[in-house]
Amino acid sequence: MLGAGLIGMFYTRALHGNRSRDRVHVLYSRSEQRARECAEAWGVEGWTTDMARAVNDPDTDVVVVGLPNALHKQAVLLAAQAGKAVLCTKPLATSTRDAMEMLEAVEKAGVFHGYLEDLVYNPKMLKTIEAIGKGALGRILWTRSRETHPGPHSAWFWDKAESGGGAIVDLGCHCIELSRAMVGKDVRPMEVMCWADTLVHPIEVEDSAIGLIRYETGAIGQFEVSWCFRGGMDLRDEVSGTEGTVWVNHWLRTGFEMFTTVGQEGYLAEKAEGDRGWLFPVGDELGELGYVAMFTDMLDALDSGSVPLESFYDGYVVNACMEACYRSIGSKGWAPVELPLWRGRAGVEKLSGQRDYDQRHTLIKEERMPDGRIKLILKEKATGSIVEGIR
Amino acid sequence: MLGAGLIGMFYTRALHGNRSRDRVHVLYSRSEQRARECAEAWGVEGWTTDMARAVNDPDTDVVVVGLPNALHKQAVLLAAQAGKAVLCTKPLATSTRDAMEMLEAVEKAGVFHGYLEDLVYNPKMLKTIEAIGKGALGRILWTRSRETHPGPHSAWFWDKAESGGGAIVDLGCHCIELSRAMVGKDVRPMEVMCWADTLVHPIEVEDSAIGLIRYETGAIGQFEVSWCFRGGMDLRDEVSGTEGTVWVNHWLRTGFEMFTTVGQEGYLAEKAEGDRGWLFPVGDELGELGYVAMFTDMLDALDSGSVPLESFYDGYVVNACMEACYRSIGSKGWAPVELPLWRGRAGVEKLSGQRDYDQRHTLIKEERMPDGRIKLILKEKATGSIVEGIR
Amino acid sequence: MLGAGLIGMFYTRALHGNRSRDRVHVLYSRSEQRARECAEAWGVEGWTTDMARAVNDPDTDVVVVGLPNALHKQAVLLAAQAGKAVLCTKPLATSTRDAMEMLEAVEKAGVFHGYLEDLVYNPKMLKTIEAIGKGALGRILWTRSRETHPGPHSAWFWDKAESGGGAIVDLGCHCIELSRAMVGKDVRPMEVMCWADTLVHPIEVEDSAIGLIRYETGAIGQFEVSWCFRGGMDLRDEVSGTEGTVWVNHWLRTGFEMFTTVGQEGYLAEKAEGDRGWLFPVGDELGELGYVAMFTDMLDALDSGSVPLESFYDGYVVNACMEACYRSIGSKGWAPVELPLWRGRAGVEKLSGQRDYDQRHTLIKEERMPDGRIKLILKEKATGSIVEGIR
Amino acid sequence: MLGAGLIGMFYTRALHGNRSRDRVHVLYSRSEQRARECAEAWGVEGWTTDMARAVNDPDTDVVVVGLPNALHKQAVLLAAQAGKAVLCTKPLATSTRDAMEMLEAVEKAGVFHGYLEDLVYNPKMLKTIEAIGKGALGRILWTRSRETHPGPHSAWFWDKAESGGGAIVDLGCHCIELSRAMVGKDVRPMEVMCWADTLVHPIEVEDSAIGLIRYETGAIGQFEVSWCFRGGMDLRDEVSGTEGTVWVNHWLRTGFEMFTTVGQEGYLAEKAEGDRGWLFPVGDELGELGYVAMFTDMLDALDSGSVPLESFYDGYVVNACMEACYRSIGSKGWAPVELPLWRGRAGVEKLSGQRDYDQRHTLIKEERMPDGRIKLILKEKATGSIVEGIR
Repeated sequence: MLGAGLIGMFYTRALHGNRSRDRVHVLYSRSEQRARECAEAWGVEGWTTDMARAVNDPDTDVVVVGLPNALHKQAVLLAAQAGKAVLCTKPLATSTRDAMEMLEAVEKAGVFHGYLEDLVYNPKMLKTIEAIGKGALGRILWTRSRETHPGPHSAWFWDKAESGGGAIVDLGCHCIELSRAMVGKDVRPMEVMCWADTLVHPIEVEDSAIGLIRYETGAIGQFEVSWCFRGGMDLRDEVSGTEGTVWVNHWLRTGFEMFTTVGQEGYLAEKAEGDRGWLFPVGDELGELGYVAMFTDMLDALDSGSVPLESFYDGYVVNACMEACYRSIGSKGWAPVELPLWRGRAGVEKLSGQRDYDQRHTLIKEERMPDGRIKLILKEKATGSIVEGIR
Repeated sequence: MLGAGLIGMFYTRALHGNRSRDRVHVLYSRSEQRARECAEAWGVEGWTTDMARAVNDPDTDVVVVGLPNALHKQAVLLAAQAGKAVLCTKPLATSTRDAMEMLEAVEKAGVFHGYLEDLVYNPKMLKTIEAIGKGALGRILWTRSRETHPGPHSAWFWDKAESGGGAIVDLGCHCIELSRAMVGKDVRPMEVMCWADTLVHPIEVEDSAIGLIRYETGAIGQFEVSWCFRGGMDLRDEVSGTEGTVWVNHWLRTGFEMFTTVGQEGYLAEKAEGDRGWLFPVGDELGELGYVAMFTDMLDALDSGSVPLESFYDGYVVNACMEACYRSIGSKGWAPVELPLWRGRAGVEKLSGQRDYDQRHTLIKEERMPDGRIKLILKEKATGSIVEGIR
Repeated sequence: MLGAGLIGMFYTRALHGNRSRDRVHVLYSRSEQRARECAEAWGVEGWTTDMARAVNDPDTDVVVVGLPNALHKQAVLLAAQAGKAVLCTKPLATSTRDAMEMLEAVEKAGVFHGYLEDLVYNPKMLKTIEAIGKGALGRILWTRSRETHPGPHSAWFWDKAESGGGAIVDLGCHCIELSRAMVGKDVRPMEVMCWADTLVHPIEVEDSAIGLIRYETGAIGQFEVSWCFRGGMDLRDEVSGTEGTVWVNHWLRTGFEMFTTVGQEGYLAEKAEGDRGWLFPVGDELGELGYVAMFTDMLDALDSGSVPLESFYDGYVVNACMEACYRSIGSKGWAPVELPLWRGRAGVEKLSGQRDYDQRHTLIKEERMPDGRIKLILKEKATGSIVEGIR
Repeated sequence: MLGAGLIGMFYTRALHGNRSRDRVHVLYSRSEQRARECAEAWGVEGWTTDMARAVNDPDTDVVVVGLPNALHKQAVLLAAQAGKAVLCTKPLATSTRDAMEMLEAVEKAGVFHGYLEDLVYNPKMLKTIEAIGKGALGRILWTRSRETHPGPHSAWFWDKAESGGGAIVDLGCHCIELSRAMVGKDVRPMEVMCWADTLVHPIEVEDSAIGLIRYETGAIGQFEVSWCFRGGMDLRDEVSGTEGTVWVNHWLRTGFEMFTTVGQEGYLAEKAEGDRGWLFPVGDELGELGYVAMFTDMLDALDSGSVPLESFYDGYVVNACMEACYRSIGSKGWAPVELPLWRGRAGVEKLSGQRDYDQRHTLIKEERMPDGRIKLILKEKATGSIVEGIR
């Protein structure tokens, strides 16, 4: 385990708790004190401040990268060199170029690689993706992924040199991959329009951003990220298709509502604000964040020699989309997503909805009116004029 | 009452039911049959197919315009000429230029004018606006207004010649004014970024659009409109400020949930899809849509000689924002909102959040950690470097 | 208007705001100071501390009784004597005997009488009752009405001499009438089982109670009332029938959610607890509590000479049910509802559900299984044995 | 694994999926075909129709009883005789006497025993119980546990000879144990009031029941069970204390909402009704039902030689409460819970709430009024009279 921050703790807890036969053997942190203390607190036997030593330790089968973004590349290249399987937290890299280099390194070395995009593995998202695959929503038109909270917990997130960017890099990477998972990961993201600003915090990077990703089918992936949200952590996904809709709330409204006047000593939920009044805890935090299913998929794929749901290739596509976002912010217009490497489908036709009503009309719409009748809106094929009818 | 469509029916029901002393005296429709039938069905004594006659009828104190968009201007100019008070449904006009001309006409004639933007008058929105005014949310950062359904009920909406546009014109006008009401109507909308597409219906105008309005404070007003949504009518507003958040759901989740296997003969809610399974009726439809409070405000303002919450000036600003949306769609970049007439504040400073922690640091963030301690993220004023602390 | 407490204020605001042509002319309160102050604050021209004078005032067309329970009888008898229409707040009386006496007095005097059971008039309840009437839920099996909050706001509620009882009398009366409205007001309540206790407050009367009313059809009306609830006011109704279900939340979850760190100076919602953190305001309080529709129905019925939805007869039935509750608490068993006067149906048959599957079997149940097949549970008519099948 | 019904399938999936090192070695079913087919489908190597052989199989370390209720006793006695650890599904037995006999048998044999009450292990319930333990809700006053659906999926549930009873036995056992877990398992259930009826299905046993359990503290555990609910599975728990409230919805409102017009081929959620319109899937069904945490606790306790959260003793207390329910139904009054064996606390004092306001008054209540003032309701200690004050 490389990294002794909050993400390292969540990963270690998930790994130890999950399949019950996996153990973190050695913990790396840049700070000796932190490495020692966390190793003890999390029940990890060894620790070191030497990254290479942790990677090359003979007990290390899998390198889990939970470090600040700017250190991912070094860690992944070390793992590839050592021929070790490597799982890397999000975002994969701080640039598309680095992401490609890392992807090439692990593929060349022939090592197993997984991209730790946990939110795609959330049980509700897995079921949503399954339902989409079965056609329950028809053709996908729009997705919305929102991740906002009052800001991250470690200093390095706020520091461009270590993070590579603000809320887009921290949270947008989740949203972009969720959008791909819902639209279909083989559908090419074509161009991006993004707004970002630093509205509240005295920092260099953006604390708020909204982006639109246009896919080749015409579908739009909308994301909203912010470090300025008040009220806890707002983690929602929505998707709309020609035949249906899904609304998912992962965090603040999951059927668990508590009112208390007491003020609990201690911790209720990640990024909760306050401990009195109406609170919205999450039953199984690690489960709802997708950690449990993610590590099960990763380790099962590793054991069976198959490809996990999320690999470095996905991380690379996400980096390319984020880079397009920053270009769009700069140009104040749509920016193309530059993907030198694209393994999905090409030339997918755009969505359109032509439904014949009868020989002379296409159907625009039907709706039940207050008086119970069905009203039709039709287009005359010959003239293009729009008429009403009652059925 | 000019207009015998769904909106005419809702307005008439609201007017008759509301203050209980107001009556629609004469109903105008372009179709004789429709005028006659609706007048009878809605309990209106007179009807005509001559718009000028309806306006100039001596029993007419107030002209209510519920016509297709392209006819608003003619009706309003007739009312101004006749010196009659005039209430016009949304959107005010099909162009900013027409909107300005209509505003000038009523102001020059000195007649009372109201812009029938009902959703601002929804009881939840009125309370939200009141709470914002009291400072409950701090400074406003972001608003989201979503209005989507499977498409409108009258043919003219789908026909550019009569409507002037698609989902932006039909629904976006609500969202834009709601955003202004939450950000502050005296804050100038500066520029707009908008995406639109025709994804499902065989029509010329857009059936889906997403827009971002940037205000002078830096606040962003986000809107999502669509005629492709499945599941009923999605009518939600959200607003986020430095000190709080409001989430409003006007339609599908209002604390009223019904499961039925029966399939009710008849009508449950505007734009509901289906009549079996889980359904989400709305208790007081006219109230939730704001009609009741809107007509009360309009008629009370008229009686007392004061200005209603929504006047033609507001309709004109909305038209200007929509026009910027269409320019942005064309240019694929941000487009300025052109407001030859601006009566709000000018030169408002942009939001920023500088909070001193001590003499040497500004506070970036504080958060309670799982172990109960308060973690601080601070910025050293002298060096700009970001450090962590524990309190 | 007799009474200058919270209920008097709500009624006055509803009356003035509603049809816009009704005015409170004279306000009676036992306290001179209160009468004077409230009359001024609510915009009422006259006030008095002499109940008879208020009733007999020539400007008084309708006597509205908003007094402590123990004073209802005196006020109603005065109104009957004066030949004035009378509207009485809930509960009608402090005993079934008094309720009958009051009913007889108004009927004998031939005056209009309305029972101000506002919650039946809540827009969601009116639609629920309409849906039940249309058969959307099939035959009604169970209703649940819950009204709990941290306790009432006036001293007299807590004092048995003035109130006649605790949470059952204050809140149970609502629940009982709501249950009747959902089960069908012509279905006779047969017997009652009730638990009550004084768990929290240092008072003589019950602060918590749960009751079951068994109707002649076999349907059960369950109520839960408490003055010990923390978190605001919990006002929910549920109803379950052979073909459907309705869940209504009137107060804390109506699609309006606010988070604030500010602490608003002032008032957000009746019986809200706290003014920071997540709050759940109600858009239109008077509407959600049913006051608007209630006074409209009452005054329209008065104007047209018809019977309102809720009359003194209903108040009398509620009193009879509450009296059975107290008898059940005493006897620790089911107690019959004693209704010397019953104007509904008699001898209604009990619910039962015999559905033939084929000639030899009745159908107990069918369910879709995980593998997609339909599983049947059948009862052999000849033997009574229960068997499974797959379709 | 004894039993090849739905519960056997859920248990096997949970066991195999969970700690990833546990396997079902042999599957017993009374039907040879079912045993063979299920063993194959669920990936179990061996199967038999001889219960004793399955229990005594040398590969069997733990006997998991997932059989119809009437067979639990035989299976448990076999396991005790064989000296094998035994986990038994709910309810433990069909009578308190049998439950005691089974408890004595496993204790005498010194074998590990677990009561498979899964819903107590639901992640939301575990957190609720933890919050109650920390005092977040103050003293517990009331619990509500509701489990209703359209009826069970196997014929034996409907047949009194195999099940021992209807909805109380099938579902009430969950609710009773959930209530104990919230009130405190060391608080003695004193007496029970229960209503039951057969309202819909042509069966001998009850298809609907409501029960109240009075605990020694005065707290009330309310349960509602039914096989007549329409709309899926209603699985909710609520708990109210002097300082707070928890509302949990396990099934139909967990932040996952789907609308589809398609009608999915296949299975969405246990006991869902319909596959079109608005549907409410559950993300992680096995997790939400508590199976994952339950088997983890059971097997970890077995491995470490400790006592699991739910043992046969708990199953026995539940049986005693259910027996009291049936006695109450018969007598139409409260019935004492007969517990020959009681290992919790005795003589616990009843709840009461005496709070001094000042030397002369006790505080009944305080509430913020619409005008912002704090209103006090006080009781004069000397006279007992109730007065109001403003602060």
